Amino acid sequence: MKKKLSIGVDLGGTNLRAAIVTPEGTIEKKLKVPSVGDVLKTLSELIERLFTPDVVGIGLAVAGLVDVKNKKVLFSPNLRQIEGADIAIILQERFKVPVCLENDANLAALGESIAGAGRSYDSFVLFTLGTGIGGGIVRNRQLVSVSSEIGHMIVEASGRMCGCGRQGCLEAYASSSAIMSMVREGLNSGVDTLMKHHPPNLAITPAEVYLEYAQKGDALAIDILTKAGLYLGIGIANIINILSPDAVILTGGLIEAKTYYLQTAMQTAYTTAIKELFEQTTIITTHLSDDIGLIGSAHVAFQAAEGLLNYGK
Amino acid sequence: MKKKLSIGVDLGGTNLRAAIVTPEGTIEKKLKVPSVGDVLKTLSELIERLFTPDVVGIGLAVAGLVDVKNKKVLFSPNLRQIEGADIAIILQERFKVPVCLENDANLAALGESIAGAGRSYDSFVLFTLGTGIGGGIVRNRQLVSVSSEIGHMIVEASGRMCGCGRQGCLEAYASSSAIMSMVREGLNSGVDTLMKHHPPNLAITPAEVYLEYAQKGDALAIDILTKAGLYLGIGIANIINILSPDAVILTGGLIEAKTYYLQTAMQTAYTTAIKELFEQTTIITTHLSDDIGLIGSAHVAFQAAEGLLNYGK
Repeated sequence: MKKKLSIGVDLGGTNLRAAIVTPEGTIEKKLKVPSVGDVLKTLSELIERLFTPDVVGIGLAVAGLVDVKNKKVLFSPNLRQIEGADIAIILQERFKVPVCLENDANLAALGESIAGAGRSYDSFVLFTLGTGIGGGIVRNRQLVSVSSEIGHMIVEASGRMCGCGRQGCLEAYASSSAIMSMVREGLNSGVDTLMKHHPPNLAITPAEVYLEYAQKGDALAIDILTKAGLYLGIGIANIINILSPDAVILTGGLIEAKTYYLQTAMQTAYTTAIKELFEQTTIITTHLSDDIGLIGSAHVAFQAAEGLLNYGK
Repeated sequence: MKKKLSIGVDLGGTNLRAAIVTPEGTIEKKLKVPSVGDVLKTLSELIERLFTPDVVGIGLAVAGLVDVKNKKVLFSPNLRQIEGADIAIILQERFKVPVCLENDANLAALGESIAGAGRSYDSFVLFTLGTGIGGGIVRNRQLVSVSSEIGHMIVEASGRMCGCGRQGCLEAYASSSAIMSMVREGLNSGVDTLMKHHPPNLAITPAEVYLEYAQKGDALAIDILTKAGLYLGIGIANIINILSPDAVILTGGLIEAKTYYLQTAMQTAYTTAIKELFEQTTIITTHLSDDIGLIGSAHVAFQAAEGLLNYGK
């Protein structure tokens, strides 16, 4: 019997990464190249190096808004080059296999479902907690292929301005960019904080706020992390109340901010979600390995190759 | 070939209502009796009057939190008698057909999908706008059988107290009970309003606020309806951002509050949802007929009889 493989590609970040993956989710070979110059050309060459006659499909993970049905990137702030471009169509013509585009957080959720922390749950919602906040929904072990912009769920209508131009989004409170905004506001307000003595030439990093300053007992750092955690907890509670998933899986750099951020989030989710629904939901954290997104990307390509993708919503 | 029928029952409200329904969603016969005394006994007698050997299942719609898998009502504020009772199991033993329990807003969504305004959409989220705010999610023309407590999505974390004991729920702003609370607060504050001259022995109704006082230009009535509509718009935008459904269907008494409440909601959803996702979603209003819930209840019973219900989430 012919061996079946697919190629998963992650177009986010400073590197283009691609892997050749088995239907069981095992990575056979992995490559990465810097994401410079003509992305489509670099991408095409990268796939060429992995492609074999056994490859039945290619899945591309893109940070941003994706029109899955029409295979278009609607909005990708970090990769403007590919917005509106026929990247999937062009690759499909070149490699003669189905090529699908999906949002990277969605494919991370699918990867978690196949080979990660999501394996134990029929349904879960993944929160990616980093510079921004993204999400992905898995139900009945299938990716719910919708744009799950959970970072732009409004949790405080009269609240902080978000980078998206709206007011009170979850991302405006609970992301690392929000934490850094609140640090800058605190420093500008002249409040007493150890962070005032940070080496002036080095920008404070989110990790320094939660691993260094908060651990040293700095009141401003603790207040900011507690506030961010409170809103994360509200976001989690809203998702539990709306979708009652088996699990909420938290991932991304901020899961390291355990003491004030995550603890407050857990406590707030507990007091804020409807009790009976909270009790049915497990909240866990997991490190998102680079491989998870590639496995999810490859998996969606297998589904496309087998005609299993249902673009109905 | 044997004719297949099922019985849908609505346990909400002051009456118990039941209907015998075809697989196509046509109601063949409908009965209602006052919901007094021993509910289980009344319910059992009502079903007895409709039951024929052609009936393959019974579906019960309950206002409140339902554990579908274990066929238990967890929480039903208006029908405390049936909380925790083995109502489905008892009926199943008596009538020897599968009996399922579901949340009434979920079954209304399913009914809308089969025989109502939802027929034109593969996926939609139903908002029931009344004393409280409920919801139901349909995806790929199937009911997503989760507790969609969209009324308890928090939209203003530091906001108004909700009847559920939490702060800032959508229901605390955009339901008719919230509108009436705000009216009472306005009257108590001594603000100038036509509502001060309302006959003292007659409580003001929500319909009087939006059909009478707001239409007469009363500033307090207009302010309250505009505020309620603003938060409804945020709730709709959140659902669009999280689930990007094909449609949002608004139903319930408050859809009559067109001028200030609904118009503000539409405008706010437009400015608050992510543009690309808003553009893919149709927002419509529909009158929820009593029949829709019965058709949904009967349909879920057909699915149970055919072994099609998947209780995985």
